[in-house]
Order: sequence, then structure tokens, then C-alpha cells
Amino acid sequence: MIIDCHGHYTTAPRQHEVWRAEQIAAHKDGRSPPARPPISDDEIRLSIEQGQLMVQRERGTDVTLFSPRAAGMSHHLGDAATSEAWAAACNELIHRVCVLFPDNFVGVCMLPQSPGVSPRNCIAELERCVGEFGFVGCNLNPDPSGGYWTDPPLTDPYWYPLYEKMVELDVPAMIHVSQACNPAFHTTGSHYLNGDTAAFMQCLTSDLFSRFPRLRFIIPHGGGAVPYHWGRFRGIAQDMKLPLLKDLLLHNIFFDTCVYHLAGQELLAKVLPAENILFASEMIGAVRGIDPDTGHHFDDTRRYIEQLPLSPEARQLIYEGNTRRVFPRLSAQLALQARA
Amino acid sequence: MIIDCHGHYTTAPRQHEVWRAEQIAAHKDGRSPPARPPISDDEIRLSIEQGQLMVQRERGTDVTLFSPRAAGMSHHLGDAATSEAWAAACNELIHRVCVLFPDNFVGVCMLPQSPGVSPRNCIAELERCVGEFGFVGCNLNPDPSGGYWTDPPLTDPYWYPLYEKMVELDVPAMIHVSQACNPAFHTTGSHYLNGDTAAFMQCLTSDLFSRFPRLRFIIPHGGGAVPYHWGRFRGIAQDMKLPLLKDLLLHNIFFDTCVYHLAGQELLAKVLPAENILFASEMIGAVRGIDPDTGHHFDDTRRYIEQLPLSPEARQLIYEGNTRRVFPRLSAQLALQARA
Repeated sequence: MIIDCHGHYTTAPRQHEVWRAEQIAAHKDGRSPPARPPISDDEIRLSIEQGQLMVQRERGTDVTLFSPRAAGMSHHLGDAATSEAWAAACNELIHRVCVLFPDNFVGVCMLPQSPGVSPRNCIAELERCVGEFGFVGCNLNPDPSGGYWTDPPLTDPYWYPLYEKMVELDVPAMIHVSQACNPAFHTTGSHYLNGDTAAFMQCLTSDLFSRFPRLRFIIPHGGGAVPYHWGRFRGIAQDMKLPLLKDLLLHNIFFDTCVYHLAGQELLAKVLPAENILFASEMIGAVRGIDPDTGHHFDDTRRYIEQLPLSPEARQLIYEGNTRRVFPRLSAQLALQARA
Repeated sequence: MIIDCHGHYTTAPRQHEVWRAEQIAAHKDGRSPPARPPISDDEIRLSIEQGQLMVQRERGTDVTLFSPRAAGMSHHLGDAATSEAWAAACNELIHRVCVLFPDNFVGVCMLPQSPGVSPRNCIAELERCVGEFGFVGCNLNPDPSGGYWTDPPLTDPYWYPLYEKMVELDVPAMIHVSQACNPAFHTTGSHYLNGDTAAFMQCLTSDLFSRFPRLRFIIPHGGGAVPYHWGRFRGIAQDMKLPLLKDLLLHNIFFDTCVYHLAGQELLAKVLPAENILFASEMIGAVRGIDPDTGHHFDDTRRYIEQLPLSPEARQLIYEGNTRRVFPRLSAQLALQARA
């Protein structure tokens, strides 16, 4: 089985995002938001069958861990209340996709974050998504401000209440920023990658995983700049008299394979243990075109991995085993959805 | 000849940084700063002979393009006047190093930047350093706020007056952030790399190099996350209907080799044309230890490059040719200093 641990519902019916714009406009005007628009099962089916499901089939992957559009989380807009309503709407839509396509999608939720608002605020929605919808993980935004980085680092006690709940529910978080509203950053080109690198370094310089040994983070987009600079990070840790990175971080931090060329995938597989790499493509996502050099989609990451000199065991870990281990609720949820 | 295009005076006599602390304390109290402390030629000689010069000799490199300590620029502290005085002090010290060791060091200046202050403010110091001291380039901080990214992107007309002067003087800029004062970022572990990636993406989404075809930027630290994600950047550019990156950016953007493990150097050399790679180590800098896996310093980047399957021509470009081309004043300055 090939499990893609990183997919977003980038093809949601149009009225979903239209409502978001109306919600934020109402918030700005001090009005109540309009009622959420009706979205039919057929509209959802169409958006998936002509989108992510079609691509799964074309590429021969089986299941996607599916979450709301990452740039669309836009936690910097509105306030705690608008974030709660928007997260609820987005997560309910993901749940409907998983009910309609139980063999192909398992849910991962966005959290109702807001700059300066305690992550404690996210616990109810996380519990609802895991308990009621059978979601297996969450996306955690290390910078709800959208590029101004005004909240404390992920290693600050500020975040502990959420981590306690994650550990209790046994769900990991993918560390994933959202849309950049800071003109210094391009959302998918620099803000995403920078968020990944910043989060990794926050963890490196803290005792977070001593405090929370069962907390697990997935750093997406191949870990940002981290594998390419693995020597730099090893050296910085050593200069700081810290343990080896494999002991300090690699029981708790995992990297996905959203790297869109073979040379990058080769580096990732060379530098990090297979146990820490989770297959992912982020399709349909940041890069949608076909690479003229290969004739295949840039984000068809399976094609790169097929070319790597991996043992069958390592390949199985990357495609399936690691994701089942890092998302401990996944196997039972897949079985439950298969029976539905 | 092996030219290291990226070295900082991280070993300056202690009273230099002590004065900086005094200057900032005085600024906070609304007092005038004390007079700058005397620093003797012998103190400078010692700091270099036991530092960068010793390492040059050990590693068999010849010349370093030498600039003030990058984290020490700390443009977020004080105001325009303190930045001017500090940049003057730092650059004058670099000039003294180059006079004392004319065969081994050529100057690159820091600029007196300050958040929200027009880069026009940097022109006088750049002219002084190039005209009076024979410096061949400058370091340009894309985020004088130190991690809050409050200034316009590098592609904004805000920066044009400085670019006009750089083109007139025929000097490139290394794009290099300084110390992070934002707790979200570790200065050398994430802020440096994120600054590199952000700057590259700013250039990708602009017409800057059509406006300034003779403007040249060096993106240090191996280009941040850029080479590792080269497929992502190619794909994003293609989705935006932009020209190929080699045509859009690679006449004007160059990457240094400050990547501290072999796998990263292999990737860099595989992904980017040799014409766009400039040898550098940033010694004595961010990573000072010895890699237990190799028995050599992490930042002894020449050792990695010696192991790459490069043609003699490509190696010469990386070690020397590109740096002479990207810093057009360098060859004449080396000759001038050799006669001194």
C-alpha cells in the first residue's frame, strides 16, 4: 500500500472559499457572517473524482491523509471566533470526503489558531475531529501571523496544553504554515520552506521531546532546508554540546517526501534514515505543471522514489510502514472505513 | 588560486564588540556613545594570524573576501545614526586587516542599514569603502528588523537607489541577514537559511534583473533551501508562465558553497551550473567543530569539493573564475594589494 501523508483539499467547491471571504468581510464590518452555503455530495464527489482521486489512480497510490487547504487556513485573518467557525467548516468538509471515499482518504484536521490566542483554544476542535470524525492527525501552524512570526516558538510552554491533548489522543502534527500576508514571503515558494526550517531549529534548541517523548512532528516539504544542510545542523548541535541529532530529534521528528526533483529525493534518502521519511506528494498543491525535463508532473514524487537505490524494506517503510507508525490511529481507522 | 568569497571577521579584538554594547546602551539612555577604543595593529595581526589566516593555510586556500561579522551587524539595534557609526567602525577594521594582509584578504563592506530607513542611507558608506578602501562588494541585509521582516522585499523600488550605486560601482551584494532578535528563529540555524530562500523567491517573482541587468546577488549558505528544492522553484516559475530560471535569474544570482557535508555539495553541483557556484566556507563562522564522521572540520568545504566529479574547468570556475567575474573589481584590487 502507498500512503500519501500530505494532501490538501485544494479543489473544494467554490462556494466554500466564497463563504470564507464573506465571513472575513462580515468580521471586518462587525456583522455576523452569513449562513454556510449548501454543498452537495455530488459537488464533493466531482471535485475529488476529477481531482485527487484521479491523480491517485494515475500515479498508483492508495490512500491520502487529507486536510484542508493549507494556504486557506489563513489564521492571520479575523479572530479566534472566525478561526473556530472556519476550521469547523473546513474539517467537516474533509470528513465528508472521507465518508464518500472511505478507501482513499483519511482525515487530518486544521486547528482554529489565531495570532496571540492560546493553543488551548484548539483542543475542542481536535477532540471533535479525532473523536467524532476519526481523524488521525492535525496540522499545526507555527506562525499564525502569516509571516511576521509574532507567536512564541513551538517549544514554548504556550503550546503545551495542545501537546498534552495530542499525546493523550495519540495523534501527531504536521508543522505547516499557511498563507503569507507578509510581502517578504511567497507562500509556497519561501514561507512554507522557511516555516519547516524554523520549526526544526526550534526543536533542536529545546528539551521539548524530553518533556513530551510521545509527541511527534512531521516536517513537510522534505524538511525545508534541513536535509540539504544536515551537516550544518549536526555541527551546530555539536557546538552546543547537544546529543546526536538522531538521539535528540529523530524519535520525534519525521520528514515527508514533497521534494520535486530526483536530486533532492536522492539527498533526502541519503542523509536521513528511512525510518524518518514518509511518502507524500502534496498533490494537488503548490506545483501543478509537468517538468519538461522528465515529461512527468513535478509533484509525482513516487517516480523519484522508484528510482532511488532503496532496499524493499526501506521502500515499504517510506510508502506505508512509517506513516502507520507515526499516525498510530491510522490502521484502525483504515479498517473502520473499509467496513463502512 | 582558491578564493573564499564568504568570510567574516568573527575574531575581532574584544574591545570592538564591547564598544558596540556601550554604543547601544548609550543610545538607549539618550547619551552620546563613548569614543571608539584603540585597537593596535598587533592585536589585529594576532586575531588574524591565529584565526582566519591559520585556517587558510591549513586548508590550502589563498584569499578570502572579508567582511564584518554578519550576526554582529545587528541592524535592528539603535537607529540610522548608530548603524552608520557601527558600520564605519566595522568596515575600517576590515580595511586594516586587508592592509596588514594584502595577499590574503580583500574587503567587502557591511552597510549602515536600519529598519524603515531608506537604503539611500547606505550609499555614502558603500562609496567610501569601494573608493577609499578598495572593497569589492557589500553585504545586503534583506531584513534589517532581525526576523520580523518589516521592510519591503528586495525587489521593491525602495532599494533601487542602492542598486543604482552598486551598478555604477560594479560591485555585487551578498544577501545576508544578521542576528535574529525574534525568538522564533535561531540566527545561524534558521534565520540565515530562511533569509537566503526568501530573497531568492523575491527575485523569482519580480522583474528586478530586467530593470538592473548588471545587478548581481550572491545567495550564501549554498542558497538556503533553493538547490534542494530546485524542482519546486522550476515548477512554480513554470506555473507562473515565467522564463526558465536559468534565463530569469542565473545571469544575476550566484550561490556560495557554505554547505557542510558532502551530500549537500553533491546536490549543489548537480543542480546548478558550475558558472553559478562560488567557493566559500564562512570560516571562522557558524559551525566550528570537527565532524566525527570525517575527522575534519564541518566547514572545511574544500574537502567536499575535491571529492566532486567536476571537470578541471568547472573546478577552476568554482574556486576562482566565477568570483573574479562576479566581483569585477577583484582582480585589479588583488594586483594593487600585491604591489603594496
